[in-house]
Amino acid sequence: MVPDLPSYECSCGRSYAPSVERWRCDCGGLLELPPVALTWNPRPGDHSLWRYEDAIPVPGRALSLGEGMTPLVEASLDGDESGVRLKIEYASPTGSFKDRGAVMLVTLARLLGATRLVADSSGNAGTAVAAYAARAGLAAEIFVPSGTSEKKLHQIRGHGSRVTVVDGSREDTAKAAAERVDATGAFYASHVYNPYFYEGTKTYALEVFEQLGEVAPATLVLPAGNGTLVLGAYLGFAGLRAAGLIDRLPRIVAVQAERCSPVASAFAAGSHHVEPVLPEATVAEGIAIAAPARGARMLEIVRETGGSVVTVSEDEIARSHAALAARGLWVEPTGAVAYAAVRRLRAEGSPFVEGDVVAPLCGSGLKASL
Amino acid sequence: MVPDLPSYECSCGRSYAPSVERWRCDCGGLLELPPVALTWNPRPGDHSLWRYEDAIPVPGRALSLGEGMTPLVEASLDGDESGVRLKIEYASPTGSFKDRGAVMLVTLARLLGATRLVADSSGNAGTAVAAYAARAGLAAEIFVPSGTSEKKLHQIRGHGSRVTVVDGSREDTAKAAAERVDATGAFYASHVYNPYFYEGTKTYALEVFEQLGEVAPATLVLPAGNGTLVLGAYLGFAGLRAAGLIDRLPRIVAVQAERCSPVASAFAAGSHHVEPVLPEATVAEGIAIAAPARGARMLEIVRETGGSVVTVSEDEIARSHAALAARGLWVEPTGAVAYAAVRRLRAEGSPFVEGDVVAPLCGSGLKASL
Repeated sequence: MVPDLPSYECSCGRSYAPSVERWRCDCGGLLELPPVALTWNPRPGDHSLWRYEDAIPVPGRALSLGEGMTPLVEASLDGDESGVRLKIEYASPTGSFKDRGAVMLVTLARLLGATRLVADSSGNAGTAVAAYAARAGLAAEIFVPSGTSEKKLHQIRGHGSRVTVVDGSREDTAKAAAERVDATGAFYASHVYNPYFYEGTKTYALEVFEQLGEVAPATLVLPAGNGTLVLGAYLGFAGLRAAGLIDRLPRIVAVQAERCSPVASAFAAGSHHVEPVLPEATVAEGIAIAAPARGARMLEIVRETGGSVVTVSEDEIARSHAALAARGLWVEPTGAVAYAAVRRLRAEGSPFVEGDVVAPLCGSGLKASL
Repeated sequence: MVPDLPSYECSCGRSYAPSVERWRCDCGGLLELPPVALTWNPRPGDHSLWRYEDAIPVPGRALSLGEGMTPLVEASLDGDESGVRLKIEYASPTGSFKDRGAVMLVTLARLLGATRLVADSSGNAGTAVAAYAARAGLAAEIFVPSGTSEKKLHQIRGHGSRVTVVDGSREDTAKAAAERVDATGAFYASHVYNPYFYEGTKTYALEVFEQLGEVAPATLVLPAGNGTLVLGAYLGFAGLRAAGLIDRLPRIVAVQAERCSPVASAFAAGSHHVEPVLPEATVAEGIAIAAPARGARMLEIVRETGGSVVTVSEDEIARSHAALAARGLWVEPTGAVAYAAVRRLRAEGSPFVEGDVVAPLCGSGLKASL
């Protein structure tokens, strides 16, 4: 019944067929699905990411809420930001790009015969997993750090998931979730550990490629916390290149909030691994990850593509949020981060944003409390 | 420069070329754009409502935020609601189906040379007009009744619109807006008075038709306050019939909240016009319209299509909201109204919901306060 699913691979050389219980390597390492040449065969009548079904290893169409195929629009109609395009990821079923990955993980869990899921998230990933678990009829438990807004808890519970509030940091929350997984044998629907998540965020790249007329932009500017979009977008363009559809990868410019920027610090230092930081509070809470598990991979990707890792200040985020709103675009603060970097880099005349630039607007402004 | 735009027509026989100032007939009557046979020529590469550009009298593609082409999904995956499909209208740029009409009105305003817009709304239409006005670089003033949530006012102001709070009812708010229009010569971007709005909501019908494989469903169940979807969906299917693409119109079942149901009362009484009611408070605030200006037209449409007007209780709305959430679908309370009617009618074995049924989920649950 289970279709051929690609195996998890670890850099230590081990590989594993996907199973309900498996979420990391016996060596403790992270599991990956290496990039493969993808089959480019978009289904004309499909207006969701499932138009790329032939490029996706998971048969998730049945579970779909129509996620993906989000609009790609000019940043500005008055011509002063020619070449900058924004992808309205917030026009998604649960209001963020995390739906792309959540539908993959929940489909995988169901295929493998899981009956219970565990996830940890301070926000968008948690509501996305809760929504798709509900759609699939699977029980889910979502671990959130204390301080998560009542509004989000209300939604997660509304979808029938159990909420477990962890009195501690984002990292403590992940640890508690992993312990629950190991203790109960639940499927760990983790956007950090399960690489099938990136097979979903990969479709961001495929859509950009198709929406630009089957060409790659010069630069992708992407917010980076745990790096789900950086890793996914890379997989997509690497798959297109391996299939001979493009010659070179777009530069990937990863963006962090100045107040929580471990990847940017490592990049600036020329390092190949990321040291945890003590984060300060930032409005970009969706990417405030002090110890990103896949930080080293992000550094590799940015370097391979000739990109960079940059930071934006709280003030820049606020001003970009206002600039987007003044153009009819309504995002949560984290959703303004990539555009803030585009503005700054273009104002500086940075070579990283020469040519066509695409940045995502990841989460809906309706998610922000008020 | 201005393309051929269809003229406004009044049932008194007068007609008018669209202009900035014109929003009602000299006789005081409502202006309409009568149904016409439409050109069915969907653009394959377009994943917004602009794929139906040839069926839309307004050249609004330039202003688009990618509105439309929302997902159509099975109500339930477990087979117990076979034949019931839900259209996820809340996965829209501003989180509601009102984007379909707002893009038309703002485009029309710009074509006509307007520099200022006025609109009145208690919610979704106001934020949609504010967003598209911002996108177009036009000044807008949005009139809202007192009691409108701070969250909505924050968004409208964020888009650069001026907010004018009217100390009175929804009807008082509309009156204040109309007075401002007449006093200042602003363009009245009204989803009630300007029939170009329905050329936008018309695309709801075109999408349903295409997504079902170019057939009409047996029944459309639609929420009805001012009737923007009822009128638009009718226009769409009437246009498809006039073009010879379908033989019969789907039944249109309009749904009102029991606590504010002037159209349902008129329908039940066999009347051809709608008497205003004194509404009680309802969670379905988005359709709590005590004196719908186009009530008589709604009655005609429902009767012509062999449909009905039904009401749902507060309890039914709440239970349907919970049932949707338990299936991964997150709507504001008004967004659960149509589905509540589907559930009740199917439980009763009503002939109105025999065959394929499509109902919209109009507004995002993220819009609801909490």
